[in-house]
Amino acid sequence: MRKITNNTDYPGFLLSCEENLLLDSGKSIKKYQIAYQTYGELNSSKDNAVLICHALTGDQFPAEESPITKKNGWWDLMVGPDKPIDTNKYFVICSNVLGGCVGTTGPNDINPETSKIYGLDFPTITIRDMVKVQKILIEELGIAKLKSVIGGSMGAMQVLQWAATFPESVQSTVCIAGSLKHSAQNIAFDEAGRQSIMLDPNWNQGRYLELDQKPENGLSVARMIAHITYLSEKAFQNKFGRNLQEKKDLSFGFGIDFQVESYLRYQGRSFVDRFDANSYLYMTRAMDYFDVSEEIINNQKKIIDNEIRFLVLSFTSDWLFPTKESREIVSLLNSIGSNVSFAEVVSDRGHDSFLLDEPQFFRVCEGFLKGIK
Amino acid sequence: MRKITNNTDYPGFLLSCEENLLLDSGKSIKKYQIAYQTYGELNSSKDNAVLICHALTGDQFPAEESPITKKNGWWDLMVGPDKPIDTNKYFVICSNVLGGCVGTTGPNDINPETSKIYGLDFPTITIRDMVKVQKILIEELGIAKLKSVIGGSMGAMQVLQWAATFPESVQSTVCIAGSLKHSAQNIAFDEAGRQSIMLDPNWNQGRYLELDQKPENGLSVARMIAHITYLSEKAFQNKFGRNLQEKKDLSFGFGIDFQVESYLRYQGRSFVDRFDANSYLYMTRAMDYFDVSEEIINNQKKIIDNEIRFLVLSFTSDWLFPTKESREIVSLLNSIGSNVSFAEVVSDRGHDSFLLDEPQFFRVCEGFLKGIK
Repeated sequence: MRKITNNTDYPGFLLSCEENLLLDSGKSIKKYQIAYQTYGELNSSKDNAVLICHALTGDQFPAEESPITKKNGWWDLMVGPDKPIDTNKYFVICSNVLGGCVGTTGPNDINPETSKIYGLDFPTITIRDMVKVQKILIEELGIAKLKSVIGGSMGAMQVLQWAATFPESVQSTVCIAGSLKHSAQNIAFDEAGRQSIMLDPNWNQGRYLELDQKPENGLSVARMIAHITYLSEKAFQNKFGRNLQEKKDLSFGFGIDFQVESYLRYQGRSFVDRFDANSYLYMTRAMDYFDVSEEIINNQKKIIDNEIRFLVLSFTSDWLFPTKESREIVSLLNSIGSNVSFAEVVSDRGHDSFLLDEPQFFRVCEGFLKGIK
Repeated sequence: MRKITNNTDYPGFLLSCEENLLLDSGKSIKKYQIAYQTYGELNSSKDNAVLICHALTGDQFPAEESPITKKNGWWDLMVGPDKPIDTNKYFVICSNVLGGCVGTTGPNDINPETSKIYGLDFPTITIRDMVKVQKILIEELGIAKLKSVIGGSMGAMQVLQWAATFPESVQSTVCIAGSLKHSAQNIAFDEAGRQSIMLDPNWNQGRYLELDQKPENGLSVARMIAHITYLSEKAFQNKFGRNLQEKKDLSFGFGIDFQVESYLRYQGRSFVDRFDANSYLYMTRAMDYFDVSEEIINNQKKIIDNEIRFLVLSFTSDWLFPTKESREIVSLLNSIGSNVSFAEVVSDRGHDSFLLDEPQFFRVCEGFLKGIK
């Protein structure tokens, strides 16, 4: 049984599913819910729906004011009336991913089998699992085919997974700063972050919520590590250089001397207020496991028959998901004969560019979407 | 009063100084000792001495078997009989840096003023402070002028500092994978590592040795973070790729699935056995503070009058100390009219290249040293 209700914890809606969800791991979840938000109106032919897939630390609130941060949504520059993903024209859907911590079922929810918080009893999930529940949501909304599936970073992984797993349900995809598979270096950064969380004594094998304490220090350091990878060396140089934080001279101590230290500590501290440590473990693991090439090759006939149009985008200074990896996506998609466009956007702001004001990037996205009839 | 004795804790020697050492911070240390090792013989004219400066986690044992790791010394490929730094020809000196944890005075030693372990009462040190005590050691050995000062990474910082502060005592320098100043990105990585240590509950404001516990988890994660920066993306790809660790299939859990995870955890774990967490804080801070351009410019007349020959080396795939930063060193040295050679060595092994078997790199170093008459 599936039903849609208003979300009482956050703005938007909840799709509650009283059914078994079989996961890639072979395990399953007995019942689950998907928290999502929509912008714009679904037209009568139900062919103007755009699904936005969020990144590791994103949520279902790309546009308007975020109820989580009370600031603009994480993709407010991209999504809204008269913006590149124009909510006057498109019905935009964004759901919190499976394993997330903003309303969709994840490790900090109650396990119906034990009536305790899941913690590490939550099964390990994959990007394909995330996309499977998005497909269920789209079905419930009565949408047979999405005009586009769009996302950056972990969102780009979901985008490629949609094309690979549900090619008949996608008219186009926009894959931004992504890759066919997580690189060894990226697995290494993820693992350092996970170890930081799991070695925090407050983590307690993931049972921290029951004990009313959180591995805040570990999660904070994990966020700092990740945050460095989101910027480019040039971005660090331009933003901070070796500028001192509200002082004229070095303090000769371990407090905050440099602006970049203040920035990093703030990023770490503020993150723990809005994100769950176990969710961080599950999502980074899903990224590590991502490797979609084989499924794209296996499903190439359906991808071609359904005439999916692909747009692949990268940023020159992104070293977490460098252009090289986007070219590999393009190369694979070309090798199966699909319709793929590619643009490398010049930006010195690193991986984070996809969340920032990058006019060339917006123009390419907007133009591509206009071309999808 | 200064005296040299055999080191009873480690192979090599100890220079003990019963005198005040004034530091850049304005603070001073009442008495201190320098642990060092030598290889080869000092000739009668005392003009064949080469000082090797170690990197962040190095020690005074570059050659032969290391008493710490029981493996080859950290620069055994470079230093020894008939090796590029040929101990048949040169008298090689290497000392543990000030603030270190292998015999030279540092934060885990007894503060003579309180009879307690220093901990954070140890004054913050700079690269110049490290070099100052090396200069005292060289004086005690009766060496007026070093044939060469050689080092990579934090060692390269010491090399440049020698030329800037004691130009009359240096005939040549070899600055490998270094920079004129620590970049904002590098300060950020250092800060993430320090926060990992300082947020470990076992750190106890640096008083962990008194309490007979160590911030092993925090130091281990700091090492993991740093280790990622020592390799290139290509090196991660070549060494590990997405290979699984002794298994055929993903485990769908948070244990070790990928070889790269096993490697990183091992690096973290093994590091805590041989390195002190407070030393790690002090040394990374010294690197953050390093900014030597002004002193080079101020001392340019002495640098030129003493006809110091400079060799600057970088590695193509080093993104921690990229070639760009070595070019900045070369550019500054050229601008003051000094005699500077530069080589960018092609290697896909990242910053760690300077510790690895890189024949082109060895040839350049060997040739340069032969040319110093």
